[in-house]
Amino acid sequence: MAGPEIEHLVQLLARLPGLGQRSARRAALTLLKRREQLLAPLAAAMTDAAAKVKTCSVCGNYDSVDPCAICADQRRDPSLICVVEDVASLWAMERSGLFKGRYHVLGGVLSALDGIGPDDLFIDRLVARASAEEVAEVILAMAATVDGQTTAHYLVDRLANCHVAVSGLAQGVPVGGELDYLDDGTIGAALRARRPIA
Amino acid sequence: MAGPEIEHLVQLLARLPGLGQRSARRAALTLLKRREQLLAPLAAAMTDAAAKVKTCSVCGNYDSVDPCAICADQRRDPSLICVVEDVASLWAMERSGLFKGRYHVLGGVLSALDGIGPDDLFIDRLVARASAEEVAEVILAMAATVDGQTTAHYLVDRLANCHVAVSGLAQGVPVGGELDYLDDGTIGAALRARRPIA
Repeated sequence: MAGPEIEHLVQLLARLPGLGQRSARRAALTLLKRREQLLAPLAAAMTDAAAKVKTCSVCGNYDSVDPCAICADQRRDPSLICVVEDVASLWAMERSGLFKGRYHVLGGVLSALDGIGPDDLFIDRLVARASAEEVAEVILAMAATVDGQTTAHYLVDRLANCHVAVSGLAQGVPVGGELDYLDDGTIGAALRARRPIA
Repeated sequence: MAGPEIEHLVQLLARLPGLGQRSARRAALTLLKRREQLLAPLAAAMTDAAAKVKTCSVCGNYDSVDPCAICADQRRDPSLICVVEDVASLWAMERSGLFKGRYHVLGGVLSALDGIGPDDLFIDRLVARASAEEVAEVILAMAATVDGQTTAHYLVDRLANCHVAVSGLAQGVPVGGELDYLDDGTIGAALRARRPIA
Protein backbone atom coordinates (compact mmCIF):
# COMPACT_ATOMS: atom_id res chain seq x y z
CA MET A 1 0.00 0.00 0.00
CA ALA A 2 2.35 2.73 1.18
CA GLY A 3 6.14 2.64 1.53
CA PRO A 4 7.76 0.62 4.35
CA GLU A 5 8.52 3.77 6.41
CA ILE A 6 4.83 4.73 6.41
CA GLU A 7 3.66 1.17 7.12
CA HIS A 8 6.08 0.91 10.06
CA LEU A 9 4.84 4.25 11.43
CA VAL A 10 1.20 3.12 11.17
CA GLN A 11 1.95 -0.18 12.93
CA LEU A 12 3.67 1.60 15.84
CA LEU A 13 0.93 4.25 16.13
CA ALA A 14 -1.68 1.47 16.26
CA ARG A 15 -0.08 0.24 19.49
CA LEU A 16 -1.03 3.44 21.32
CA PRO A 17 -4.09 3.11 23.58
CA GLY A 18 -7.24 4.37 21.88
CA LEU A 19 -5.84 4.05 18.34
CA GLY A 20 -6.78 1.10 16.13
CA GLN A 21 -5.55 0.37 12.60
CA ARG A 22 -7.89 2.87 10.98
CA SER A 23 -7.26 5.74 13.39
CA ALA A 24 -3.51 5.00 13.27
CA ARG A 25 -3.67 5.46 9.46
CA ARG A 26 -5.57 8.74 9.93
CA ALA A 27 -2.97 9.88 12.48
CA ALA A 28 -0.11 8.93 10.13
CA LEU A 29 -1.72 10.84 7.25
CA THR A 30 -2.19 13.90 9.45
CA LEU A 31 1.46 13.67 10.47
CA LEU A 32 2.62 13.33 6.85
CA LYS A 33 0.40 16.21 5.72
CA ARG A 34 1.82 18.46 8.44
CA ARG A 35 5.43 17.35 8.33
CA GLU A 36 7.00 20.63 9.48
CA GLN A 37 4.40 21.69 12.03
CA LEU A 38 3.62 18.33 13.65
CA LEU A 39 5.64 15.29 12.52
CA ALA A 40 9.13 16.76 13.05
CA PRO A 41 8.29 18.40 16.44
CA LEU A 42 6.58 15.22 17.69
CA ALA A 43 9.55 13.08 16.62
CA ALA A 44 11.85 15.50 18.47
CA ALA A 45 9.62 15.53 21.57
CA MET A 46 9.63 11.72 21.66
CA THR A 47 13.39 11.46 21.19
CA ASP A 48 13.77 14.06 23.94
CA ALA A 49 11.41 12.22 26.30
CA ALA A 50 13.05 8.85 25.59
CA ALA A 51 16.44 10.32 26.45
CA LYS A 52 15.54 12.49 29.43
CA VAL A 53 12.53 11.10 31.27
CA LYS A 54 13.40 8.79 34.15
CA THR A 55 11.42 6.97 36.82
CA CYS A 56 11.88 8.67 40.19
CA SER A 57 13.86 6.32 42.46
CA VAL A 58 11.96 7.57 45.52
CA CYS A 59 8.29 7.61 44.49
CA GLY A 60 8.11 6.05 41.00
CA ASN A 61 6.82 9.20 39.23
CA TYR A 62 8.11 10.08 35.72
CA ASP A 63 10.26 13.21 35.44
CA SER A 64 13.46 14.43 33.83
CA VAL A 65 15.12 14.74 37.22
CA ASP A 66 15.65 12.06 39.88
CA PRO A 67 14.33 12.51 42.56
CA CYS A 68 11.33 13.99 40.75
CA ALA A 69 10.19 17.61 41.13
CA ILE A 70 7.52 16.58 43.66
CA CYS A 71 9.91 14.60 45.89
CA ALA A 72 12.47 17.42 45.67
CA ASP A 73 9.95 20.19 46.43
CA GLN A 74 10.75 21.41 49.96
CA ARG A 75 7.34 23.13 50.22
CA ARG A 76 5.54 19.77 50.06
CA ASP A 77 4.77 18.10 53.36
CA PRO A 78 7.15 15.14 53.90
CA SER A 79 4.93 13.74 56.66
CA LEU A 80 2.17 12.76 54.18
CA ILE A 81 2.52 9.98 51.60
CA CYS A 82 -0.29 9.33 49.12
CA VAL A 83 -0.12 5.80 47.66
CA VAL A 84 -1.39 5.56 44.06
CA GLU A 85 -1.67 2.69 41.64
CA ASP A 86 0.11 4.31 38.70
CA VAL A 87 1.42 7.61 37.34
CA ALA A 88 -1.97 8.31 35.70
CA SER A 89 -3.54 8.35 39.18
CA LEU A 90 -0.73 10.58 40.43
CA TRP A 91 -1.42 13.06 37.62
CA ALA A 92 -5.15 12.96 38.42
CA MET A 93 -4.42 13.77 42.09
CA GLU A 94 -2.11 16.62 41.04
CA ARG A 95 -4.78 18.05 38.72
CA SER A 96 -7.09 18.39 41.71
CA GLY A 97 -4.37 20.61 43.20
CA LEU A 98 -5.46 19.74 46.74
CA PHE A 99 -2.78 17.32 47.92
CA LYS A 100 0.35 18.95 49.26
CA GLY A 101 2.26 15.88 50.44
CA ARG A 102 4.35 13.37 48.50
CA TYR A 103 3.47 10.26 46.50
CA HIS A 104 4.30 6.60 46.21
CA VAL A 105 3.53 4.84 42.92
CA LEU A 106 2.80 1.14 43.55
CA GLY A 107 3.10 0.12 39.88
CA GLY A 108 -0.27 -1.67 39.84
CA VAL A 109 -2.64 -3.44 42.19
CA LEU A 110 -2.73 -6.99 43.52
CA SER A 111 -4.63 -9.19 41.09
CA ALA A 112 -5.06 -12.94 41.36
CA LEU A 113 -6.48 -13.04 37.81
CA ASP A 114 -3.50 -11.25 36.27
CA GLY A 115 -1.05 -13.08 38.54
CA ILE A 116 0.20 -9.88 40.21
CA GLY A 117 1.40 -10.54 43.77
CA PRO A 118 3.01 -8.32 46.42
CA ASP A 119 6.50 -8.91 45.01
CA ASP A 120 5.47 -7.36 41.68
CA LEU A 121 4.61 -4.04 43.32
CA PHE A 122 6.81 -1.48 45.10
CA ILE A 123 5.45 -2.41 48.52
CA ASP A 124 8.73 -3.05 50.37
CA ARG A 125 9.91 0.36 49.27
CA LEU A 126 6.68 1.91 50.61
CA VAL A 127 7.09 0.18 53.99
CA ALA A 128 10.67 1.44 54.16
CA ARG A 129 9.57 5.01 53.38
CA ALA A 130 6.66 4.84 55.86
CA SER A 131 9.07 3.67 58.59
CA ALA A 132 11.04 6.91 58.36
CA GLU A 133 10.79 9.25 61.33
CA GLU A 134 9.22 12.14 59.42
CA VAL A 135 6.23 10.25 57.98
CA ALA A 136 3.02 10.62 60.00
CA GLU A 137 0.25 9.51 57.64
CA VAL A 138 -0.12 7.25 54.60
CA ILE A 139 -3.20 7.90 52.43
CA LEU A 140 -4.25 4.92 50.32
CA ALA A 141 -5.72 6.32 47.07
CA MET A 142 -6.39 3.08 45.23
CA ALA A 143 -9.31 2.72 42.83
CA ALA A 144 -12.66 1.74 44.39
CA THR A 145 -12.52 -1.62 42.60
CA VAL A 146 -12.22 -5.10 44.10
CA ASP A 147 -8.51 -5.32 43.25
CA GLY A 148 -7.88 -1.77 44.44
CA GLN A 149 -9.58 -2.36 47.79
CA THR A 150 -7.89 -5.76 48.22
CA THR A 151 -4.56 -4.02 47.73
CA ALA A 152 -5.53 -1.34 50.25
CA HIS A 153 -6.37 -3.97 52.87
CA TYR A 154 -3.08 -5.75 52.24
CA LEU A 155 -1.21 -2.46 52.62
CA VAL A 156 -2.98 -1.72 55.94
CA ASP A 157 -1.56 -5.02 57.26
CA ARG A 158 1.92 -4.36 55.93
CA LEU A 159 1.97 -0.83 57.38
CA ALA A 160 0.76 -1.97 60.82
CA ASN A 161 4.23 -1.82 62.40
CA CYS A 162 5.29 1.47 60.85
CA HIS A 163 3.72 3.72 63.49
CA VAL A 164 1.89 5.83 60.90
CA ALA A 165 -1.79 6.68 60.57
CA VAL A 166 -3.26 4.94 57.51
CA SER A 167 -6.29 6.46 55.78
CA GLY A 168 -8.26 5.87 52.57
CA LEU A 169 -10.17 8.14 50.21
CA ALA A 170 -13.80 8.69 51.20
CA GLN A 171 -16.45 6.87 49.20
CA GLY A 172 -19.78 8.50 48.40
CA VAL A 173 -21.78 10.46 45.86
CA PRO A 174 -19.47 12.07 43.26
CA VAL A 175 -19.84 15.82 42.69
CA GLY A 176 -22.66 16.37 40.18
CA GLY A 177 -23.90 12.80 40.71
CA GLU A 178 -27.65 12.22 40.55
CA LEU A 179 -28.89 9.43 42.82
CA ASP A 180 -31.02 7.95 40.04
CA TYR A 181 -27.88 7.23 37.99
CA LEU A 182 -25.69 5.88 40.80
CA ASP A 183 -25.22 2.17 41.46
CA ASP A 184 -26.47 0.58 44.69
CA GLY A 185 -22.95 0.09 46.02
CA THR A 186 -22.18 3.81 45.84
CA ILE A 187 -25.48 4.79 47.45
CA GLY A 188 -24.90 2.23 50.23
CA ALA A 189 -21.37 3.52 50.84
CA ALA A 190 -22.60 7.13 50.93
CA LEU A 191 -25.37 6.18 53.37
CA ARG A 192 -23.05 4.29 55.72
CA ALA A 193 -20.58 7.18 55.71
CA ARG A 194 -23.26 9.84 56.20
CA ARG A 195 -22.21 12.96 58.08
CA PRO A 196 -24.10 15.25 60.47
CA ILE A 197 -24.98 18.55 58.80
CA ALA A 198 -24.27 21.49 61.06
CA MET B 1 1.94 18.33 36.85
CA ALA B 2 4.70 16.50 34.99
CA GLY B 3 8.02 17.81 33.67
CA PRO B 4 8.15 20.12 30.62
CA GLU B 5 9.27 17.28 28.29
CA ILE B 6 6.21 15.22 29.20
CA GLU B 7 3.84 18.22 28.98
CA HIS B 8 5.22 19.10 25.52
CA LEU B 9 4.78 15.48 24.38
CA VAL B 10 1.16 15.43 25.61
CA GLN B 11 0.35 18.73 23.87
CA LEU B 12 1.72 17.45 20.53
CA LEU B 13 -0.03 14.07 20.86
CA ALA B 14 -3.32 15.88 21.54
CA ARG B 15 -3.10 17.41 18.05
CA LEU B 16 -3.43 14.00 16.39
CA PRO B 17 -6.91 13.24 15.04
CA GLY B 18 -8.94 11.12 17.46
CA LEU B 19 -6.84 12.04 20.50
CA GLY B 20 -8.05 14.65 23.01
CA GLN B 21 -6.25 15.87 26.13
CA ARG B 22 -7.18 12.83 28.20
CA SER B 23 -6.31 10.21 25.59
CA ALA B 24 -3.09 12.09 24.74
CA ARG B 25 -2.12 11.78 28.41
CA ARG B 26 -2.93 8.05 28.33
CA ALA B 27 -0.86 7.66 25.16
CA ALA B 28 2.06 9.56 26.72
CA LEU B 29 1.93 7.36 29.84
CA THR B 30 1.90 4.21 27.70
CA LEU B 31 4.90 5.53 25.77
CA LEU B 32 6.79 6.36 28.98
CA LYS B 33 5.95 3.00 30.52
CA ARG B 34 7.26 1.19 27.43
CA ARG B 35 10.24 3.40 26.63
CA GLU B 36 12.40 0.72 24.99
CA GLN B 37 9.69 -1.21 23.13
CA LEU B 38 7.49 1.67 21.93
CA LEU B 39 8.68 5.22 22.64
CA ALA B 40 12.17 4.90 21.16
CA PRO B 41 11.05 2.94 18.04
CA LEU B 42 8.17 5.37 17.41
CA ALA B 43 10.48 8.37 17.76
CA ALA B 44 12.86 6.73 15.28
CA ALA B 45 10.04 5.85 12.86
CA MET B 46 8.81 9.46 12.93
CA THR B 47 12.27 10.91 12.41
CA ASP B 48 12.72 8.45 9.55
CA ALA B 49 9.38 9.35 7.98
CA ALA B 50 9.99 13.09 8.39
CA ALA B 51 13.33 12.73 6.61
CA LYS B 52 12.40 10.26 3.87
CA VAL B 53 8.73 10.53 2.94
CA LYS B 54 8.04 12.87 0.03
CA THR B 55 4.97 13.84 -1.94
CA CYS B 56 5.07 12.20 -5.40
CA SER B 57 5.55 14.93 -8.01
CA VAL B 58 3.42 13.00 -10.50
CA CYS B 59 0.33 11.87 -8.56
CA GLY B 60 0.59 13.47 -5.09
CA ASN B 61 0.87 10.17 -3.16
CA TYR B 62 3.22 9.90 -0.15
CA ASP B 63 6.24 7.64 -0.55
CA SER B 64 9.96 7.54 0.14
CA VAL B 65 10.70 7.62 -3.59
CA ASP B 66 9.64 10.18 -6.20
CA PRO B 67 7.90 9.22 -8.45
CA CYS B 68 6.08 6.96 -5.97
CA ALA B 69 6.09 3.15 -6.19
CA ILE B 70 2.69 3.16 -7.89
CA CYS B 71 3.66 5.68 -10.58
CA ALA B 72 6.94 3.82 -11.16
CA ASP B 73 5.31 0.36 -11.32
CA GLN B 74 5.50 -0.70 -14.98
CA ARG B 75 2.86 -3.40 -14.43
CA ARG B 76 0.22 -0.79 -13.65
CA ASP B 77 -1.89 0.40 -16.57
CA PRO B 78 -0.78 3.92 -17.59
CA SER B 79 -3.96 4.43 -19.64
CA LEU B 80 -6.14 4.62 -16.49
CA ILE B 81 -6.04 7.48 -14.00
CA CYS B 82 -8.17 7.34 -10.85
CA VAL B 83 -8.74 10.81 -9.36
CA VAL B 84 -9.03 10.81 -5.55
CA GLU B 85 -9.56 13.58 -3.03
CA ASP B 86 -6.66 12.75 -0.72
CA VAL B 87 -4.08 10.08 0.13
CA ALA B 88 -6.53 8.44 2.58
CA SER B 89 -8.86 7.75 -0.38
CA LEU B 90 -5.91 6.43 -2.41
CA TRP B 91 -5.04 4.00 0.41
CA ALA B 92 -8.70 2.90 0.60
CA MET B 93 -8.72 2.17 -3.15
CA GLU B 94 -5.45 0.25 -2.84
CA ARG B 95 -6.82 -1.83 0.06
CA SER B 96 -9.61 -3.02 -2.24
CA GLY B 97 -6.80 -4.36 -4.48
CA LEU B 98 -8.98 -4.05 -7.56
CA PHE B 99 -7.62 -0.97 -9.32
CA LYS B 100 -4.59 -1.58 -11.52
CA GLY B 101 -4.13 1.88 -13.03
CA ARG B 102 -2.49 4.99 -11.60
CA TYR B 103 -3.75 7.75 -9.35
CA HIS B 104 -4.06 11.50 -9.14
CA VAL B 105 -4.48 13.08 -5.70
CA LEU B 106 -6.45 16.34 -5.99
CA GLY B 107 -5.55 17.59 -2.52
CA GLY B 108 -9.18 18.25 -1.50
CA VAL B 109 -12.52 19.06 -3.09
CA LEU B 110 -14.05 22.35 -4.23
CA SER B 111 -15.86 23.93 -1.31
CA ALA B 112 -17.49 27.35 -1.33
CA LEU B 113 -17.90 27.20 2.46
CA ASP B 114 -14.21 26.48 3.11
CA GLY B 115 -13.11 28.88 0.36
CA ILE B 116 -11.42 26.15 -1.69
CA GLY B 117 -11.45 26.99 -5.41
CA PRO B 118 -9.98 25.24 -8.48
CA ASP B 119 -6.61 26.95 -8.01
CA ASP B 120 -6.20 25.35 -4.57
CA LEU B 121 -6.37 21.83 -6.05
CA PHE B 122 -4.02 20.00 -8.44
CA ILE B 123 -6.45 20.30 -11.36
CA ASP B 124 -4.12 21.85 -13.97
CA ARG B 125 -1.68 19.02 -13.36
CA LEU B 126 -4.51 16.50 -13.84
CA VAL B 127 -5.55 18.10 -17.15
CA ALA B 128 -1.92 18.01 -18.30
CA ARG B 129 -1.62 14.32 -17.39
CA ALA B 130 -4.96 13.45 -19.02
CA SER B 131 -3.84 15.17 -22.24
CA ALA B 132 -0.95 12.72 -22.63
CA GLU B 133 -1.21 10.29 -25.53
CA GLU B 134 -1.27 7.12 -23.39
CA VAL B 135 -4.21 8.08 -21.13
CA ALA B 136 -7.56 6.61 -22.25
CA GLU B 137 -9.83 6.93 -19.22
CA VAL B 138 -10.09 9.11 -16.11
CA ILE B 139 -12.12 7.63 -13.23
CA LEU B 140 -13.47 10.24 -10.81
CA ALA B 141 -13.53 8.60 -7.36
CA MET B 142 -14.66 11.56 -5.30
CA ALA B 143 -16.84 11.11 -2.19
CA ALA B 144 -20.61 10.91 -2.78
CA THR B 145 -21.06 14.24 -0.97
CA VAL B 146 -22.29 17.56 -2.36
CA ASP B 147 -18.75 18.97 -2.52
CA GLY B 148 -17.37 15.73 -3.96
CA GLN B 149 -19.96 15.60 -6.73
CA THR B 150 -19.60 19.34 -7.46
CA THR B 151 -15.89 18.74 -7.90
CA ALA B 152 -16.57 15.77 -10.19
CA HIS B 153 -18.86 17.88 -12.41
CA TYR B 154 -16.26 20.62 -12.60
CA LEU B 155 -13.60 18.07 -13.58
CA VAL B 156 -15.84 16.67 -16.33
CA ASP B 157 -15.94 20.18 -17.86
CA ARG B 158 -12.19 20.70 -17.49
CA LEU B 159 -11.42 17.30 -19.05
CA ALA B 160 -13.77 17.84 -22.01
CA ASN B 161 -10.96 18.69 -24.45
CA CYS B 162 -8.57 15.97 -23.35
CA HIS B 163 -10.00 13.21 -25.55
CA VAL B 164 -10.34 10.79 -22.66
CA ALA B 165 -13.33 8.83 -21.41
CA VAL B 166 -14.43 10.19 -18.02
CA SER B 167 -16.28 7.88 -15.61
CA GLY B 168 -17.41 7.95 -11.98
CA LEU B 169 -17.85 5.33 -9.27
CA ALA B 170 -21.26 3.62 -9.29
CA GLN B 171 -23.72 4.63 -6.60
CA GLY B 172 -26.04 2.10 -5.00
CA VAL B 173 -26.58 -0.27 -2.10
CA PRO B 174 -23.28 -0.95 -0.25
CA VAL B 175 -22.32 -4.61 0.25
CA GLY B 176 -24.07 -5.85 3.40
CA GLY B 177 -26.45 -2.88 3.36
CA GLU B 178 -30.02 -3.49 4.50
CA LEU B 179 -32.61 -1.33 2.75
CA ASP B 180 -34.29 -0.44 6.03
CA TYR B 181 -31.11 1.30 7.22
CA LEU B 182 -30.27 3.12 3.97
CA ASP B 183 -31.15 6.76 3.37
CA ASP B 184 -33.63 7.76 0.66
CA GLY B 185 -30.90 9.22 -1.56
CA THR B 186 -29.00 5.92 -1.73
CA ILE B 187 -32.15 3.89 -2.44
CA GLY B 188 -33.11 6.39 -5.15
CA ALA B 189 -29.66 6.21 -6.74
CA ALA B 190 -29.69 2.40 -6.65
CA LEU B 191 -33.17 2.35 -8.22
CA ARG B 192 -32.25 4.76 -11.03
CA ALA B 193 -29.09 2.75 -11.79
CA ARG B 194 -30.89 -0.61 -11.66
CA ARG B 195 -29.44 -3.34 -13.88
CA PRO B 196 -31.05 -6.20 -15.78
CA ILE B 197 -30.39 -9.54 -14.04
CA ALA B 198 -29.47 -12.24 -16.51
